[in-house]
This record gives sequence, structure tokens and C-alpha cells, in this order.
Amino acid sequence: MSKWVHLFHEIEKADRMVYGGKGAGLADMTRAGLPVPPGFVVTTNACHAFNDNGQQLHQEMLADILSGITALSVRQQKGFGDPKRPLLVSVRSGAPVSMPGMMDTILNLGLNDDTVVGLATLSGDPIFAYACYHRFIQMYAEIVLGVPRYHFEKLITSYKQAESVTEDHDLSLASYQLLIHDDLELVFSQTGKEFPQDVYEQLFGAIAAVFLSWNNDRAKVYRRIHHIAEELGTAVNVQCMVFGNLGEFSGTGVVFTRDPSTGERKLFGEYLMHAQGEDIVAGIRTPNLIDQLSIELPEVYHQLHAVCQQLETYYRDVQDIEFTFENGTLYLLQTRSAKRSATAAVQIATDLVHEGLIAKQEALQRIAPEVLDQLLHPSLDESAAITVLTRGLPASPGAVSGRIVFTADEAVESAAQGQTVLLVRHETSPEDIHGILAASGILTSRGGMTSHAAVVARGMGKPCVCGCDALHIDEQKHTLTLGERVLHGGDMLSIDGATGRVIEGIVPVKSPHLTESFRELMSYADEVRALGIRANADTPEDARLARRLGAEGIGLCRTEHMFMAEERIPLVQKMILAGSKSEREEALRDLLPLQEHDFYGILQAMDGLPVTIRLLDPPLHEFLPNREGLIAKLATLQTKRHYEPDNESIHHALSETETLLNKVQHLHEHNPMLGQRGCRLGFVFPEVYDMQVRAICRAAFRLIEQGATPMPEIMIPLVGHAEEFRRMRTMVEKIIEEESRTANQRLSYLVGTMIEIPRAALTSDQIAREADFFSFGTNDLTQTTLGYSRDDAEGKFLQVYLDEKILAKNPFTEIDRDGVGQLITIAKNKGRYVKPSLKLGICGEHGGEKNSIAFCHQEGLNYVSCSPYRVPIARLAAAHAALS
Amino acid sequence: MSKWVHLFHEIEKADRMVYGGKGAGLADMTRAGLPVPPGFVVTTNACHAFNDNGQQLHQEMLADILSGITALSVRQQKGFGDPKRPLLVSVRSGAPVSMPGMMDTILNLGLNDDTVVGLATLSGDPIFAYACYHRFIQMYAEIVLGVPRYHFEKLITSYKQAESVTEDHDLSLASYQLLIHDDLELVFSQTGKEFPQDVYEQLFGAIAAVFLSWNNDRAKVYRRIHHIAEELGTAVNVQCMVFGNLGEFSGTGVVFTRDPSTGERKLFGEYLMHAQGEDIVAGIRTPNLIDQLSIELPEVYHQLHAVCQQLETYYRDVQDIEFTFENGTLYLLQTRSAKRSATAAVQIATDLVHEGLIAKQEALQRIAPEVLDQLLHPSLDESAAITVLTRGLPASPGAVSGRIVFTADEAVESAAQGQTVLLVRHETSPEDIHGILAASGILTSRGGMTSHAAVVARGMGKPCVCGCDALHIDEQKHTLTLGERVLHGGDMLSIDGATGRVIEGIVPVKSPHLTESFRELMSYADEVRALGIRANADTPEDARLARRLGAEGIGLCRTEHMFMAEERIPLVQKMILAGSKSEREEALRDLLPLQEHDFYGILQAMDGLPVTIRLLDPPLHEFLPNREGLIAKLATLQTKRHYEPDNESIHHALSETETLLNKVQHLHEHNPMLGQRGCRLGFVFPEVYDMQVRAICRAAFRLIEQGATPMPEIMIPLVGHAEEFRRMRTMVEKIIEEESRTANQRLSYLVGTMIEIPRAALTSDQIAREADFFSFGTNDLTQTTLGYSRDDAEGKFLQVYLDEKILAKNPFTEIDRDGVGQLITIAKNKGRYVKPSLKLGICGEHGGEKNSIAFCHQEGLNYVSCSPYRVPIARLAAAHAALS
Repeated sequence: MSKWVHLFHEIEKADRMVYGGKGAGLADMTRAGLPVPPGFVVTTNACHAFNDNGQQLHQEMLADILSGITALSVRQQKGFGDPKRPLLVSVRSGAPVSMPGMMDTILNLGLNDDTVVGLATLSGDPIFAYACYHRFIQMYAEIVLGVPRYHFEKLITSYKQAESVTEDHDLSLASYQLLIHDDLELVFSQTGKEFPQDVYEQLFGAIAAVFLSWNNDRAKVYRRIHHIAEELGTAVNVQCMVFGNLGEFSGTGVVFTRDPSTGERKLFGEYLMHAQGEDIVAGIRTPNLIDQLSIELPEVYHQLHAVCQQLETYYRDVQDIEFTFENGTLYLLQTRSAKRSATAAVQIATDLVHEGLIAKQEALQRIAPEVLDQLLHPSLDESAAITVLTRGLPASPGAVSGRIVFTADEAVESAAQGQTVLLVRHETSPEDIHGILAASGILTSRGGMTSHAAVVARGMGKPCVCGCDALHIDEQKHTLTLGERVLHGGDMLSIDGATGRVIEGIVPVKSPHLTESFRELMSYADEVRALGIRANADTPEDARLARRLGAEGIGLCRTEHMFMAEERIPLVQKMILAGSKSEREEALRDLLPLQEHDFYGILQAMDGLPVTIRLLDPPLHEFLPNREGLIAKLATLQTKRHYEPDNESIHHALSETETLLNKVQHLHEHNPMLGQRGCRLGFVFPEVYDMQVRAICRAAFRLIEQGATPMPEIMIPLVGHAEEFRRMRTMVEKIIEEESRTANQRLSYLVGTMIEIPRAALTSDQIAREADFFSFGTNDLTQTTLGYSRDDAEGKFLQVYLDEKILAKNPFTEIDRDGVGQLITIAKNKGRYVKPSLKLGICGEHGGEKNSIAFCHQEGLNYVSCSPYRVPIARLAAAHAALS
Repeated sequence: MSKWVHLFHEIEKADRMVYGGKGAGLADMTRAGLPVPPGFVVTTNACHAFNDNGQQLHQEMLADILSGITALSVRQQKGFGDPKRPLLVSVRSGAPVSMPGMMDTILNLGLNDDTVVGLATLSGDPIFAYACYHRFIQMYAEIVLGVPRYHFEKLITSYKQAESVTEDHDLSLASYQLLIHDDLELVFSQTGKEFPQDVYEQLFGAIAAVFLSWNNDRAKVYRRIHHIAEELGTAVNVQCMVFGNLGEFSGTGVVFTRDPSTGERKLFGEYLMHAQGEDIVAGIRTPNLIDQLSIELPEVYHQLHAVCQQLETYYRDVQDIEFTFENGTLYLLQTRSAKRSATAAVQIATDLVHEGLIAKQEALQRIAPEVLDQLLHPSLDESAAITVLTRGLPASPGAVSGRIVFTADEAVESAAQGQTVLLVRHETSPEDIHGILAASGILTSRGGMTSHAAVVARGMGKPCVCGCDALHIDEQKHTLTLGERVLHGGDMLSIDGATGRVIEGIVPVKSPHLTESFRELMSYADEVRALGIRANADTPEDARLARRLGAEGIGLCRTEHMFMAEERIPLVQKMILAGSKSEREEALRDLLPLQEHDFYGILQAMDGLPVTIRLLDPPLHEFLPNREGLIAKLATLQTKRHYEPDNESIHHALSETETLLNKVQHLHEHNPMLGQRGCRLGFVFPEVYDMQVRAICRAAFRLIEQGATPMPEIMIPLVGHAEEFRRMRTMVEKIIEEESRTANQRLSYLVGTMIEIPRAALTSDQIAREADFFSFGTNDLTQTTLGYSRDDAEGKFLQVYLDEKILAKNPFTEIDRDGVGQLITIAKNKGRYVKPSLKLGICGEHGGEKNSIAFCHQEGLNYVSCSPYRVPIARLAAAHAALS
């Protein structure tokens, strides 16, 4: 073997990194004795050397390519550029990872004005020979010389029109000869140079073009989106041509060894008679289904069937195979693992286990955890024709069509009438929560991936598209304008929360169906994973859903969402705005039974499993009317008073607004993220935490009386100093003691804290002395450790950082290991040093992301917690982590 | 020696922790052969045991006290309770640290209806005996039994009126006997119990009262304010009485061995003839100056003079001595280190060095660094009578009286007319900066210690009182209301920024005068300190001031303050609101020469010393008009349009306001602290940093041409990832390279970063590979590490945390060692591991606080940087750290 070029049959170990995916597959098939036209690979190392050499093929490389061509000539008994017996080759790119956007294929290379005559003689079909030459000139000119394809299409179309034929191969020989002349003229006029008649110049130009295409813009964008390393480079495959367009018994096709959308075990594919290369993809003629081949050319079909079996067994996976048959002889041009739908992926993985081809562990490893997301939400039926009006942020997956409403109250009203509604707002606030509950989907014009709408929608598993700039909402006119299109309240509109698309009218959706094979795959995952999986759930419904999806408890129950229910907001506002402690306690007395009811439902749904309940966390002003709105209202009323000094009702409204604004201003904070929230609130208003702990106790005692086993774990938010936790724990224990005496019951419970500010992680040894568990609140820990306000960063500088690759990953999606991860490691080591039994989990959104889950596994955490619909994903990701 | 009670003359090593300050001094003097009446100490350990024993003196302790009394009886040849030769004692508290607020002194204990007769006989002066008895009853009743003193004063006053005498000792014997009778009656009627005639009951009661007074409210408050540990406890001194009120040649007094307010070396003190104990403090009679004693009783005076010399030499410090002379015999009742003014402290420390009494190092250690603060600002003349109207936060020290103005423009106007003005605002904003510059002091009704006003005022060294709630400002009426007092614009008002006092009218102030001994002390400090001291300075004036005060460079030059000057704000706003890049660049072109001028002045002032220049840091909206104001304005205009639909000017204003508000809203952030600022700004608007770096280069090159040595250190703010720094450094170097080529000059410079977010500290090894220096921005690092927004925390939950002792110290005042300190240690270790030469400093406000400076010294940082007026404090604190 030479340094830069390896012949297929000489390759012993088909390393994709060196030979690319296509080259490795061709080498494998050649070695297995399957009918592969001979050829060679120019390796990815050559690609690197090409780039290092100022994007030139250097001397040694050229020599290696020539010796590859010589070897092919000898095998085929033809000569490259030989006008009698011309050797023709295809040149195709083949990166280690499949990559659309790169230069793909040049066929029939080696043809020129002389060799085309030889091919005509040899094949006995001059029209075939000129058709091949035309195709070659067109492909080469487009890909290597940059002459747009449509020029050539215009030329051939004019000849076909002149002869009144529809198919290229029905053109007369005379026309083809004139066409070739025109093609070559065209190339000269477009490029100022003659089309290369030197076959070696053709070959080197094609190979260089493949290498250059690795760095074209489309390829770069694709790599960035799919996180493919720049350093991989691409290989080039040079292979002897076989012709699906030569005579009656020739053709070309693509076959999958199983159905790629359902996973069913049967050949699935298409072919075209008398066709070459991309004709099948180009869609000019309608191909036949593969079953037809068993009738048309049964021998070729049976041979193909056997090859499919053999390749599936060899690769132990479903294959996607390109083939050509020339005069009834089958040739294989490519094999690769078939892309498949999520449903098929799960079906195939478990089937292959049953067939004994792969072990359960391998079945798990075959499925990327995030793929399951598609199976867990009603999704858009992608086969339907749709009109995308605009795009926003994909805030919460799932597709939905509904009638547009502009206020929460309308949403409740319409939903009560049995309508499916889409709530459209500039942005949502806690006062909209009843509308969000009633709506089937949410669309906002402002706000990012953690805006109120996004967080609440994800928590509820409702589709949501956020921050859709192009949306202009006029609440007064009750219209929504999208460019020139104006929609009115009550019109139908659709959103796809998985992609952020806003779609015209009604779109068909598919509801999630958890198959038997899905359950089976999950059982494999549960067998191997070490991490526990809990869910973030705030309602009994979510708790039940999470348990159905395999959650082993609740890792985060946010009690503030309970405060935001429509009928409670007035009570909560009364409590916050209370002038005296007794007034506040009165409001809390009314809230107590409601909270008790919440906790009862959740603890009941999670009977026998731990439920981590976080005491009230957000700053109180989140429950109050919008400050800016009040400022504007006050200014309006003051101006009105100026014009209508005797209007009593204005005076009255003014005084009321002033009072309310004063209180809201008092609670206003410059940086609420770092303000009076979490346990800081608990110190300033201990009555609130008191009420919550009593509600937990009372709910638990009722369940115990009914024979159930509630397992509450009380979580103190935002602790930064051990002393904060110590005092909070003392308070919690005192209340539980009191309630236990009153109820004459005993409750088994834990008291722990969130680790969500750096100081807590740094002093975790001090805190661990007092706490039963830590739950890493990685959302806030990321904000404080990186100094990023998520609300402000996303869509602003964070986007710039990701685009400019200052950051490789969004730290709110995947845990920032160097920073946040380091703090988790410090906290774990210090905490477990003091208390080896310390229970550790994470409950940020990272808990449902595979790389973060892998990190948690490595760190030996006890569990991760994520939103209910991500529980299966987390189970699989945890299994992957355990296996890797 | 017994366990709980030690006689003065038996104490070999006078440990203040065991015997208290007073007891230790008495023991020392006794051992030195000085005339101290015999006595004993009940130790601080007894105080602890007393508290542990349910606040009761236990058996063993009582026995020890009795044996102490017996020893005194034997020495004095008197008997405790002996009606013939009664032993009388004083009982006085004496904690390890001097502590007002505790029970102080009971004199003449041991007198009762029987022993008073013995004392009369023995002294030959019955009136003296009864006067003693009266004083004893009154003191005991007040301190031990809780009977208010004024009852007794009323009684004696009525007798004096009846006899028409003014002095107590002029009362007739008959009256005294009746008075005693009344005294005892009074005690009975007030307490329901007889005054104890049992002298042992008297003694035990008095000792227990001292112990109890350790825990009274006044003492607790005092300890909290002065950070005195609760665990110290107090000792009790029981000492034989000597009588300054016995006969003509008796008296009592207090003497300082040097002048405590100037430090001058001469006796300084007062005495009263025929007086006992507190008479001199009570101020009933005007005492004589101590010099008078040399004439009245020259022998006593000379003996006292010798004693002063002896004690000063023994303690190697200025003493504050209590003495009594009984019939011409001098007795010493107490000696302690004299409290002194800041001026005196510095004078005395250097004088003692010259006198050979102490070494330079000890002189340094004698002076608490914060004491120097008093010497560095014009301060209120505390001897003047003042009326304090209210108090706010002491935001920036110094006292000033000025005419009230309510707007920045008025301030400029009045100042231009030569008036001293006090700018009074709800709060200040960058648009007020020209007013702050013009004003001599700032007073605001809102905002905390880091409010705009506070930060700017401290930076400028101007007195400022902030967050003064009681202030009601009516800008329209041009009035300021404080309770019922209404002040108008132009009225005089004073503030004392060191204490937060707002004072009526004009108050006399003393301007700072740096004495020769101050300079000498600083030179001692410079000899021993390891830490470099730099200043935070943003103007040439501040830079010059800092250099005069000993700064060795600038650690933080905030370029944003330069953007806030009155004439620049429009340019800066134009730059921010620019619709296009070219418009922005045009505005920056105008700013460039102004910035160059700034840097020229600063680098010139610090010629030959390093100047760390931080590129623009704050979020851009800080330079824009107030958002809430615009919202209100818009609502007002919208309402007006409703009433006056045809008013063109309203339409015009409305459209302008809308446009501006839109831009302001676009820049608005939920948590600006964690938003688009620092280098994040530099990435989004690279033109700004480009302009700043060019301005630095051009200023430096001009100076080099003039033969100066500018040493700029360019600091990139808010770096969190090494990649951010790497790119910024590349940009900075490229610009410097360009400017160097243009100027044909070479510049020696450093490029470093602030470490102010936890991630930067945690990944400092990565950053150190690229950076020349780190400067710990401990203000922001504290905010992010603790998750505290300083603006929101101070005055809100942080105050609760401090009051409730959840936090021992304010982390914004003193570095939180466990959290922020740990990050600094991590950053230092990782950074220096990668780059041993890495230069490290801190530039937060902690850089001027002694405990934080001690931490920086321990950690081996290169320098601290603080505001110019704190430079001498930092120099001293750094010396202390090096010595400890």
C-alpha cells in the first residue's frame, strides 16, 4: 500500500477515520467477496496534507494516485485516457461522518473527445457513450469549475424540444454530438478556459474539488450544527464505473434492509431501469418499488436480498445500500447504517436483540437518548404539506393546532366551550397561569427559553414557541400580524414546539404511542444504569405521568407554581401586601388547606417514593402586578386628573394605584436573581415557610392514616451559609414536632438544601454537617458561576458567544464541566467527606440532558431529576453513562 | 492562691483575660511597689462559673471570697463588719476589655448602722462617716437593688435647701442622720425589703451584680458594636477603701501621662479636693487642672509625676491613671492605656520610638489602621454644639456644610458663583455627574452604600450620606422636609459622611493635616510591608492625590467614569443609540481625543508607576435616560393625545419618546449585574474597546516623546472563559501593533483580567496561560459567589442577616474568607502553578479594609488597590499583616 492511496481490496482494517464511511464500507464489501467495482481511497490524511500544502495536491500524492489508477487499469484491462479501451471512474467524497453539503459525486470521469469514441465502440451504443460524456461534462463543470447546472439543462432541453422527445436517452446521436459541442463551448464561455481533455487533469481537479468542498460554507454550517469536528477531513473514493444506463437490463437503486420509518423487517427501497447515479434522487422519473424488481429481474433481486442479509449480519445493523446492475450483473456502490425514525430505531434495536445479532447493551448504545424525545410528544406529521409562516424559539416540544386567543380569560372561556386554543401573548406572567392551563399551546412574541411561558409550558408538557419577533400583536384590535398576513382572534394557527415553527391553519399531528419495544428498551436501560431518575413535577397529574414514564420519585416539586393558580393569586397578593403580621397570617390561613390539598395529591401519586418539596423560592414581586404597567397607569391617571379635575373616580383610581405602586416599588429589585428570594424570604417572612411545612405534615398524616407511605424530603432553597441552613432546619423540625404531637403521628422525612450558589458548593462541608441531602440546582448555579443572567444572555450575548465559538456549548443546555462541574465535584468531595451517606442529586434542566447525565454518573451522584417527559431520555442516558 | 479569688500582691503574671484590665493593672502596680490599697480579684473564670451555676455564686466561690476578705482584714488590722474598726471596700467590675455599660463601682461597702459609728470614731469626723454611708446606700441601692438614683438626690437636696447649703459635706450631722434614716426607708418602700445590714450580704450582692451586669442590654449592644466576644466575662475587684473626702488634705483625680488629644508629652488631668470616686466625673464641682496640684500639694504632685514616669516606662505606653490622696498620702486606684485621638496616637507612637521605649514595629502595631481615616478627611469638630436632624448611611466620610440644591444644573450654577453646595437628590444617576463634581457633598433619600451617589462620592473623596429615608424631597416646590421642618433650596445644611448624620445649619469642620509624625509612621509601615499598595483612581487629580498619599501605582482606573462627564454623555448616548456602525464610529471618533486626554493626565501623574486601565465595563443602559421615566412620559403623552387629538407637538413628542423608549427597552436587562457588560460588551461592540486601546497608546506615545515612562496595564473586565481573554488579547495586541507602527514607537504594557466571577477563579489555570496579571474584583466576586445583589441586599435581607447574626460580618466590607477567599486561593494556586510570575492584586473595596488586607498578605498577593484616601490605611494594615 502506498502512503496516501489504498486500493479497496488491499485494505485489511477498514478504519472510517482514515478511509471515510464510504471507503470503509466499500473495502468491507470487497473483502467479503461481494460484487464491488474495483477502486481506491485517497485517505483523510491526504486531505490534511492537502490543506497544509496550501490546498495543493503535492508530488508524492499525485504519484500515489497515478499508481492507484495504474492498478485499476491492469485489473480492468483498460487504459486511463486510452481512446480504444478507456477506463472510466467515479470520484466521490467520503468523510468519516456522513455530511451533506459537501461535493458528492462525479461520474464517467476519463471521458474526452477521443475516449468517448472508444466507449461508443466498446459498448456498441454511441448514444449511451455521448449521454455519459454529456453527464460528465455537466457534473464536472458544475462541481469543479463552478458552472451552474441549469445552463446545461437548458441546452439539452432545447434539443429534446427540437426532437419532441421527453427522455434524455431518446435523443438522436446527431443531437448528442451537437449537444457535446455546445457543452464544451458553454464551459469555455463561462470559465474562459477549455474543458480539460487531459484525463489526469480531470482526475486531479476532481480530487482537489472534494478536498476543497470540506471547507465550503454549507459544509461548515452543517458541521457546526451537528458538532462535527473540523479536524476530521474527508477521503475521496475513485472507483471503476459500472453503467446502469447501458442497455435494457441495466438500472440503479437504493435499498434499506428494513423499513426505516417503522423498523419492520422487509426490504424497503426503489430502483430505476436504464438510469445512472443520482437519477433516482433527482426525481425526474418515478422509480419502482423494490418488490417490482423480484418480478422484473428475479435473479438480481434474489442476489440483492442475499447481499442485504449478509451485510446486516456483518454490520449487525440495518443497512442503506446503493446498487447498480449492468446487463443483469449486480454491483454494490455503497453501504452504510441506515438512518431511521425514532420508532424504527427502537423497534430495530430490540428486534436485533431478539434475533441474537446484538446484546441488550449494544441495543441501548445504538439509540441516542434525545431521539426518544420524538416519541414522547404529539408531533407534527412531517408528511403533510404545511406553510411555515415564521419561526420562534423551540421552547417546549410538541405540535398543536388551535384557535387564537389573546388573553388568559379568553383561553379559559373558549376551552370551557370545548375548543382547542392557542394562547398568543407578548409574554406571559403569573397572572396568565389559568390561561396557560386551559390552552393547548403557547406562542409569545418576546422572551427566551426560560421566559415564564417557556418554563411553565415545559413543566406542563405543553407545546410552546417563544420569542417570535416577527409576530405583531395588537390586543386592542384583537389581531396578530405576521408580515402582510393578519390573523384574528378565533382563527386557527399551529405551532411546532420542537422546531419553533409557526404554521398556517391546522396541521395533522401524531400522538405519542409508547410501543412494547419502547418499554423493552427502557427495561434494558434500567438493568444497567446506576443513577436514579426522578422527575420535576408540581402537580398530582405531572407526578402520575412521571411515575408512568418510570420516575423513581420527585426531585423537585416547586411550590410557587401552586401559588400561581388563578383562584390563589388574590390570596397570595393579599399575603404579600399585608400591612400587619396578623393580616398576613390570615391570608396564609386561607392558603394552608389549599397547599395541603396539593401536597396530598402529589405524595399520594408518589406513594412509597421520595418527594423533594422545595419551600417558596421566587422573589415576591413575581406574584404582584407588573411594575411598568403601574407606572404607566399612574402617569395616565395623573394626566387625566389634569384634564378632568372634578372627576371623582379618577381621584379614587389614582390613590389606589399610588398605594399599589408604592408597595410594588418597595419590593422591586435591581437584580432579582440575586435578591430576596429562597431562604432569604424564609427569614424575612417565616410565616410562609411555617404554613408550607404544616401543609406537608397534614397531607402526609392523612395519607399515613389511609395506609400510604409518604416520603417527603423538605428542601431549603438558596442556602449559601451553613448557619442559614441550621436555623431553617431547626424551624422545620420544630413545626413538624408540633404537628406530630397534634396529630399523634410520626413522620419520616429528610431536610436538605439546593446547592445553587457558588458559596454553598465551596462550603459544602459546613452545610453537609447539617443537611440530609444536596440537590444541585444547576440552572441557578450556572447563572451565578458564569455570571450570566439567563433571561438576558440567551438571544443576546450568549448567541454571539456561540456563533463566534467563544463557547463550544450552551452552558444552560449542557453542564459547563470546567466551571459548574468543578463546583459540583468540590461540593461532592467536601460534603461526602463529612457525611459519606449524603444523598446527592441534580434538579436543573441539565438533569434531562445526556452529557450532563454522563457527568452526574461519573461523579457518583445518586440521582438526576428532569421534567416528566424527559424521564425515559434520562433513563437511557444514565444507561449509556454506565456502559461507557 | 485560691481557685476563684487572687490577692493583688499574690498575682505574679497579670493576665488580663483572667483578672480583667483593672485587676491586672492593680496587680502590676502592687508588684512594682507603688501605693495601691490592698485588695483582691474575683476572676473571669468565676464569672463563667456563676453563669453556669444559674447565675448564683456557689459554695466554693463564697469561701474563696471570705478568705480574701480575711486576708485584707489581717493586713489592715480592721474587721469586716467590725463596729469598732470596720474594714470598708470598693467593689468594681473589670473586664478584659474596657466596657462602658456595665456596672461600675460601689464604694464604702461594709458600712451599716453599726460600722458607721465605728468609722465616725476612727476618723474623728462623724459627718464624713455619714456622708460615706449615704453614698454607699445610694450606690448599692441603685446598682444592686435597682432603685433610681434621683430619689436619693431629691432627699439630700431637700436637706441642703433646709440648711441653705450647696455642698453635701456642709450638711449638719443631724441632717445626715435623718437623711440616712430616710435613705433606708426609701429602699424599703421601693424594694419591699430592708437595706442589707449584713456586710457579707452586701459584698455577695455587689459581686453578683457585677457578674449580672455583663449580660445587661447596654453591655450586649456595646459588645456587638465593638465585636467583643461574649465569652470573655468580667472579673470583680474588691479593694480596701481610701478616702479622698477625709479632711483637708484629701482629694481624688485622673491623670494622663501625655495629652490624649495632641500627644504632647506633659501630664494632663484634673483633680478635686475633698472628693470621692466619681465626683470628678459627675461634674458637680469644677475640678482643678493637674498643674494646680503642684502648687497645692507639691509633694503629692511630684510623687504622682514620678509614678506616671514609672508606669509609662513599665507599660511602654501612655497611661490613664485614677488616684486618691488621703491626708496627703497618694494611692493609685487604676491604670490603663490611655484612649487617645488619632492625631495623638500617631504622635505618641513615633515619640515613644524616639524615646527608645518601643521599636518601630511596635509603634505600627499600636495604631489600628482605620484610626487613620479620621486624619484623612475634613471632619466634624466634635466639640461644637450641633443639632442632628436625622441619620442616613455613612456613604463617604468627611463633613461639609453647604447650600441646598436639588438638581445637578443648580449645583454647577451655584458653585460657579463661589458657593459651597450640598446636592440633595432622591438618588443620583450618571446624568448628575457634573452636579456631583460641582457639589461639596451629596445627600440622597434612596440608595445604599453602593448606590451611584455613594460610589461616585467615595471615588471623588467627597462626603456623602445616602438612603436617608426620613428625607422628603419635593423637587417642584423646591423643598426638603424632615419631620416638621421644611428647608428650601439655598438653605444651609450639613452632613457628616463618617457617621451618616444630617445636621442643622453650618457646622465647624477641621481639615486634615498630615503631620511629620504621620509621615514617619508611614515610613515605618513601608519598611515592613510585603504588599504593594495601589489606588483606584479615574482622574489625574485622584492619581496625583493617591501618589501623594503613597500609592505605588493605580490598581483600577475605571474608564466609564470618564464617559459620564457632562459634555460627553451626549456623545456616549449617540454612540449607543447609533443606528449603524458608521454612525457609532463617528461618535467614537469624537470621544477618542477626550479619552486620550484622560489617559495622558493619569499616566503622567503616575509616571514610572503601573496604571491598570479597565476597558469599559458597565451595561450600556447605565448611560441612557431612565426607563421608568420614559414609560411614564409615554403614558402621559398618549393620554394627552386623547384629550388634544389635534395638537401637533404632542404627536411629535410621542413619536420621539416611543423611539427612544424602544431602544432603551431593547437594552433593558432583568439582571444587569449578570448581563451584557464587561468584555461581553467588547465582543458585541468591538469599536468601543478599539477606541479605548488607541487612546491609551496615543497618550502613552506622547508621554514617551516627552521623556516620561508610562506603564499601562490593560485590564479586560468580566472574563469567565479563557477563550474570551485570548480573543480580547489578540485584539488589543493588534491595535497596539498598528498604533506603534503609525507612531514609530514601542510601548511596554501588560494585558490582564479581572477575576470577578467564580468561573474565572475556578478556571484560572486556563486564563493564566494567556494573561499577564489578575486583579480580583472582590465586589462583584462577592456578589456572584454569594448570590447577593449588593444594591438589593444592603438595607434589606443583608441587614436582617447581620442583625440576626446569620452572618458575622458584612461580606461587602470584609472578605468572606470561606467563600470568596477560597476562590481567591484556588485562583492563585492554579494561576501561579501555570505561570509562577503571574502578578496578583485586588481592586474591590476590600482593598482598603484591614482584615481583607491581612488575607491578601497571607495569600501572597502582589498588591491591594483602594481609594486614594485609604492608601495610608492600607499601607499600615499591610504592615500589620506582615508583622503578625
